Amino acid sequence: MLPESEIPTQWYNIQADMPNKPVPMLNPKTKEPVTPEDLYMLFSCEASEQELNMTDSWIDIPEPVREMYANYRCTPLVRAYGLEEALGTPAHIYFKNESVSPIGSHKLNSALPQAYYCKQEGITNVTTETGAGQWGAALSYAAKVFGLEAAVYQVKVSYEQKPYRRSIMQTFGAQVTPSPSMSTRAGKDILTLYPNHQGSLGTAISEAVELAMMTPNCKYTLGSVLSHVTLHQTVIGLEAEKQMELAGEYPDVVVACFGGGSNFGGLAFPFMRHNIKDGKTTRFVAAEPASCPKLTRGEFCYDYGDESGYTPLIPMFTLGHNFRPANIHAGGLRYHGAGLVASQLLKDGLMEAVDIEQIESFEAGTLFAASEGIIPAPESCHAIAATIREAKKCIETGEQKTILFCLSGHGLIDMAAYDQYLAGNLINNSISDETIASNIKELKDSLNG
Amino acid sequence: MLPESEIPTQWYNIQADMPNKPVPMLNPKTKEPVTPEDLYMLFSCEASEQELNMTDSWIDIPEPVREMYANYRCTPLVRAYGLEEALGTPAHIYFKNESVSPIGSHKLNSALPQAYYCKQEGITNVTTETGAGQWGAALSYAAKVFGLEAAVYQVKVSYEQKPYRRSIMQTFGAQVTPSPSMSTRAGKDILTLYPNHQGSLGTAISEAVELAMMTPNCKYTLGSVLSHVTLHQTVIGLEAEKQMELAGEYPDVVVACFGGGSNFGGLAFPFMRHNIKDGKTTRFVAAEPASCPKLTRGEFCYDYGDESGYTPLIPMFTLGHNFRPANIHAGGLRYHGAGLVASQLLKDGLMEAVDIEQIESFEAGTLFAASEGIIPAPESCHAIAATIREAKKCIETGEQKTILFCLSGHGLIDMAAYDQYLAGNLINNSISDETIASNIKELKDSLNG
Repeated sequence: MLPESEIPTQWYNIQADMPNKPVPMLNPKTKEPVTPEDLYMLFSCEASEQELNMTDSWIDIPEPVREMYANYRCTPLVRAYGLEEALGTPAHIYFKNESVSPIGSHKLNSALPQAYYCKQEGITNVTTETGAGQWGAALSYAAKVFGLEAAVYQVKVSYEQKPYRRSIMQTFGAQVTPSPSMSTRAGKDILTLYPNHQGSLGTAISEAVELAMMTPNCKYTLGSVLSHVTLHQTVIGLEAEKQMELAGEYPDVVVACFGGGSNFGGLAFPFMRHNIKDGKTTRFVAAEPASCPKLTRGEFCYDYGDESGYTPLIPMFTLGHNFRPANIHAGGLRYHGAGLVASQLLKDGLMEAVDIEQIESFEAGTLFAASEGIIPAPESCHAIAATIREAKKCIETGEQKTILFCLSGHGLIDMAAYDQYLAGNLINNSISDETIASNIKELKDSLNG
Repeated sequence: MLPESEIPTQWYNIQADMPNKPVPMLNPKTKEPVTPEDLYMLFSCEASEQELNMTDSWIDIPEPVREMYANYRCTPLVRAYGLEEALGTPAHIYFKNESVSPIGSHKLNSALPQAYYCKQEGITNVTTETGAGQWGAALSYAAKVFGLEAAVYQVKVSYEQKPYRRSIMQTFGAQVTPSPSMSTRAGKDILTLYPNHQGSLGTAISEAVELAMMTPNCKYTLGSVLSHVTLHQTVIGLEAEKQMELAGEYPDVVVACFGGGSNFGGLAFPFMRHNIKDGKTTRFVAAEPASCPKLTRGEFCYDYGDESGYTPLIPMFTLGHNFRPANIHAGGLRYHGAGLVASQLLKDGLMEAVDIEQIESFEAGTLFAASEGIIPAPESCHAIAATIREAKKCIETGEQKTILFCLSGHGLIDMAAYDQYLAGNLINNSISDETIASNIKELKDSLNG
C-alpha cells in the first residue's frame, strides 16, 4: 500500500520514447495523417492533443482528476502467496489490484480525465460504447461526477449476459441502449444485413460515434485502443513501480490481458521505459482470448476502429473490422484490433502475446479465487492464465522469477459465467486459419474498393 | 488511508467495560446461565471463551489472522464530500469503507478468525447460515484459506433473489443449500407446517446448527448477533478512530445498519468506550428496516436465536423467533433479534435506533451512488438513510456536526433490487402493532409452555 501522497502527478507517454514511432493514423476521407483538428470532431481538444503527442514523456494530471483518483488510489500491490503455494512455484507472483476502484475495474482511471476535459471545454453530453460494461459503468460515473449526460451503447450479448452492469450505469443516471440498435444509421444498416447480430465493440463504437457527431455539444469517449486512454492508465504501472521497489523486487515478466490494450499498456509502459532507456530486460506478455487473436494471429495493416468505418484508419494488428468474435464471457476482449502503440511495440519485439482458451481462463480464475479470495473478471482471468503458464515454467527450470500481473477488475457481476464453468458448460472458441484469412481478405478488398 | 502496520493487534471487548453487564444467556434445557462448555458443542473453544469474556478489554488478534487482514486492511476512511454537497449540509460526513474487502463486505473480519480457531482446534468442517450471502461468501472463503470444508444454508428468498452470491460461495468450494431444506429435521418440520416458507435467518441458523451437532468434527459459525462476532468486527472502529484523528475530527454521531449488530458494534464500540470512560458524548444510531424493527418496536426478553430453539436463550430485543420478516432486499437485516450486548446498551441509553422504510433506503443508496461512485449494499443503504436524516437536521440547525457511518458492503450483486427501485416497483413493508404484539405473545406462550 502506498499513501495518497504517492498518487502520480503525471502520466507517462511512451509515444515520446519509442524507438520507432507509431505509424500515423489516416483521415479516412483524405488518406492524409490525422491532425488534432480531425480528432476534435470526436474527442475533447485535450484528449485529441494527447493522442498525437509524440514529444512529451510526461503529461500533468489535472488536480480535480487527481482528487477523484484519491477516492480509490493508490490501489494495492499484493504478493499472491496463496497462488504461489497452490502452484508450488518458486516464482514470486505479484498483482496490482485495480478491482478496488468503486466501479470494480481500472476503467475509471481514464473515464475521469476524459469526462473532466469535456466539462472544461463546455461539452454537456458524452457518448460511448461498452462491452461487458466495465467501461460504460466508469464513464457513467465520471459523467455524473463532472455533471455531464451520458449515453452508452452496450454490446447486445453483454447487455443480455450481464444485466447488473446495465443497472449500474442506469443507477449513475446514464441512458443505456443495446447495440446494434435502430437509433443510428450504423445500427440500422447492420441489423438490415444481419438481423440477429449479437453486437460487437466495433459496432457499438460506430453507434456511439454517430450519435456524438449528430448531437450538438456532445463528444465521444473511448475506453481503450487509443493512445490517450492508455496514457491515463499509466497510473497503474507508475504506482506499481514504486510499490515493487518497496517490496525490494523488480519484475522479470509483466502480464496483462489485452482487449484494446489500455490495462496492458497502463501496467507495462512505465516498466517498458526502463527496457528502452536503462537496459532492463523485462518481458511484457499480452494475454488475449483464442477467440479474438489479433496479436498472435492477426495482420499488421490499416483498419477502421469500428464496424461502419467512421473512425480514422489505424495502423494495427487486426482481424478486420468486420470480424464477429464469439460470445465469450470476457466481453472486454472481444475487439478486432490492437492499439497502434502496442501494435508497433509488438512489431518491434518489445512485447509478446499469447492466446488463451476460454476454459483455461476460467480454470485460472477459479484457482486464483480459491487461493487469493478475489473473484477475477473474465478478462483478468486471461492475465492470470498467462501468469500461471509463466509460473509453471519456473517450476520446470527452478528459476525464481518475479512476475507481475494486472488484476484489471473483479468478476462479481460475471458470476453467471463462473456458474457455467463450474457446471462444465463453457466451450472454447478458437477460430480457424481460414476464417482469419477470409476476414483479412475482406478487409483488404473493402479498403481497396 | 492507514498503512498495513496500523492494523490493530488486538480487538476491543466492550463486555469488560459496560456499566451494566449483559444479562447472561441461558442453557435452554437447564435454564442456568450458559458456561463455555455449553458453547463448545457449537463453536470453537476459543470463540466460546471470547463469547463469555466479561473481564478483558483487549483480546489479541492471532498473527495468521492479522496476515490475512493485511490483504485488504486497513480499509479507507472517506470524507463524503459529494454527498455533503448533494445534500447542502454543513455536516461533515465520513464513511468507513468495508466494501473493499475481497468479498465485498465487512463479514470477512470475523470469518477469518472463526475459521482459524476451528482449524487450530482440529476441526475439519464448518457450517453456517447466510441471508443475502455476504456472510456465507466470507465464511466460504475463510474456510478455503484455512483448509476447512464449508456447508452454507442460505435463506431461500435470497438464494433466489441473488444467485450470484450462491455462485461466489460455490466458486470458493462451499456446499450451498437453500433453507428451509429437507436435509435437516428443523427444515422438514418448518416445511411441513409452511410448505411455501421463504426462509429466514432464524430458520437457516436452525439447519446449520443441527448439521454441526450431527456431524463429527464439525462446528457452527455465526455471522452476527453474538459477542465474539462483534468483537472481531471492532477492527473497523479501531482503525476509524486512528483515521478520524488523522483527519483532525471526532464523530458527534456514529451510524451503522443493524441486522444482528456486528457491523454496528464493530464501528461503534471502540468509540463508545470513550463515552463510557472519557466523558465523550457521541451518539450511536442503529438503522434497522421498518419491516423488522426489533430495536425500535420489539420487546426485551429471553428468546432463541433460531427458529427451532436449538440455541441458548438470549436476553435481547426481539420480535419473537417465529417472526417471518417481509422479503426486503436487505437480506442481512431480516433477523428477529438483536445481540445481547447491543440490547443491554440500548436499554441503558448508550445507543439509539431508528427504523427505515425500504424505499427511503434505496433513495438514500441511489443518491450516495451518484455522489460517491460506490453502489451500496441494500443493508448499508439503511445506514446512509439514517445518516442523511442526521445531515438534514444539521441543515435546519446550522450545526456542523461530524457524522461517521459504516459502508458495510457494496451492492454490485444486488442490482436487481436497484432495478426494481428505479422502475418504481419497490414497496415498503412496515408491520402493524398487532402483528408485533401477537408475535411477542406467541413467543411468551411458547417459552412458558
